[in-house]
Amino acid sequence: MKIGLVGIGKMGYNLALNIKDKGHQVAAYDKCSESVKEIQKHGIEGALDLKQLVSLLPERKIVWIMVPAGDAVEETVNCLYDLLNKGDIVIDGGNSHYKDTLRRFELLQKKGIDFVDIGTSGGLEGARNGICAMVGAEKEVFEIIEPLIKDISVNNGYIHTGKTGSGHYVKMIHNAIEYGMMQAIGEGFEILKKAPFELDLVDISRVWNHGSVIRSWLMELTHQLLLKEPSLDSIKGKIKSSGETIWALHEALDLGVPAPVTALSQFTRFSSETEDSFSNKIVAGLRNEFGGHSVTKK
Amino acid sequence: MKIGLVGIGKMGYNLALNIKDKGHQVAAYDKCSESVKEIQKHGIEGALDLKQLVSLLPERKIVWIMVPAGDAVEETVNCLYDLLNKGDIVIDGGNSHYKDTLRRFELLQKKGIDFVDIGTSGGLEGARNGICAMVGAEKEVFEIIEPLIKDISVNNGYIHTGKTGSGHYVKMIHNAIEYGMMQAIGEGFEILKKAPFELDLVDISRVWNHGSVIRSWLMELTHQLLLKEPSLDSIKGKIKSSGETIWALHEALDLGVPAPVTALSQFTRFSSETEDSFSNKIVAGLRNEFGGHSVTKK
Repeated sequence: MKIGLVGIGKMGYNLALNIKDKGHQVAAYDKCSESVKEIQKHGIEGALDLKQLVSLLPERKIVWIMVPAGDAVEETVNCLYDLLNKGDIVIDGGNSHYKDTLRRFELLQKKGIDFVDIGTSGGLEGARNGICAMVGAEKEVFEIIEPLIKDISVNNGYIHTGKTGSGHYVKMIHNAIEYGMMQAIGEGFEILKKAPFELDLVDISRVWNHGSVIRSWLMELTHQLLLKEPSLDSIKGKIKSSGETIWALHEALDLGVPAPVTALSQFTRFSSETEDSFSNKIVAGLRNEFGGHSVTKK
Repeated sequence: MKIGLVGIGKMGYNLALNIKDKGHQVAAYDKCSESVKEIQKHGIEGALDLKQLVSLLPERKIVWIMVPAGDAVEETVNCLYDLLNKGDIVIDGGNSHYKDTLRRFELLQKKGIDFVDIGTSGGLEGARNGICAMVGAEKEVFEIIEPLIKDISVNNGYIHTGKTGSGHYVKMIHNAIEYGMMQAIGEGFEILKKAPFELDLVDISRVWNHGSVIRSWLMELTHQLLLKEPSLDSIKGKIKSSGETIWALHEALDLGVPAPVTALSQFTRFSSETEDSFSNKIVAGLRNEFGGHSVTKK
């Protein structure tokens, strides 16, 4: 199979090599021409623009978009709408909002272009060696790309989640669970750090990966992280959010699902990015108003 | 090594077989004589009371307590205080509060009896085939029992966490993390269940164990659980608490550690056990008081 890849960022770069390793052909385009040059060193065809990329593909063209969710995807899909024809397939492998995916699906369908949403998990290592793929697509379209998906996924690591949009929906919930798990790990290790015992957090994170109930890839990464620098002094505890958990919480609100842990994982990230919150100023100020408790002046 | 085991419940039973399989000897006692008879079928010596159990052990006696935390451990330790002598070793393999462990350590030390706290993880399967062991003990005492611990743990699955009490402390935090992880999984799957797509939760839980960021033993168990009965109709969503996360939250409060996800995991369990909470009655009633919003009458 030959794939046109749009986006040679960290994920796209590794994915391109993964696809090539599995015996498929890749032509790649990125708005950054340096990235295109870099990937060409690996024997991958480079394109200078989307039009050239599309021209490099055989009939029933398949274009895999691997660019940040939002404007970048929107722009790419709009361009591909002009460049592609009936029966061609566009894949969005990023973390787009599923409602955007449904809207883009409808747009492309006007020209008979098929649209597939693939939520991918496994980080950079996964992109390089084998992803976990959650694929939303019409059944006939899924069957066309299934051999490719199977090849670039880990063994047993892909699923046809259902109709278009469902791949991104399932990936959104995957990430929400991920946030909660990570926050639980973070909280536990902070208690250990301040515990009334001298504890070796590196060794604890090691042993928890061998036979414990909480053994997991995230715990393995916790061990790797602590092994590099047990104090984590070099890392500032500001946690960015890529958006999926915010969307998952919107879903929880619309569906009436209580999701306290997911919500608090997200809100903790917001707090972590706020140097000095207005909310905390209000509460500190109120303590002063009613009880004369001192406030820390700026 | 020969071990006297007190408690042949689900965990103790599997642990006894595990110890025996690894070439050690076990004598076992349980207040339920049926359990003693059952374990004897496996070629394990049975004892009718603690005194007999202790008499079956060679010098530098080692007694492993595997009974529910609280009164049962307290009673057993008090009896063993009378029955054992200087240099003997008592192991508490349950989920005792670490402060109880420190108190019991001090008591036993009065007679020179050593006390070891082992937090074990891995569930029944672990107890049977290989635990993850978190061992709090004085260094010299740890070295005596290390060969046994190594044998009954999974490969690389034991740690000397530090002084007495630290094993139970680390296990307490392990369980707190477990609660948060489980709650995150629960919330995610409830959103999936109510999602605007027809999703196959069995297959989603399967694929998430292959290459995804959230792959974990808990996700494997989620898959097993859903495989048995995708609707989970036969299970009532009441979640009991074994106590460690409550204790972990006490620690978080005393140490000033924000632990919102851990707290909400625990509070969700409390809510799940409350058929009709006073808190909810208050809020429902207040809505009626100020806004005339209808309340559901009993």
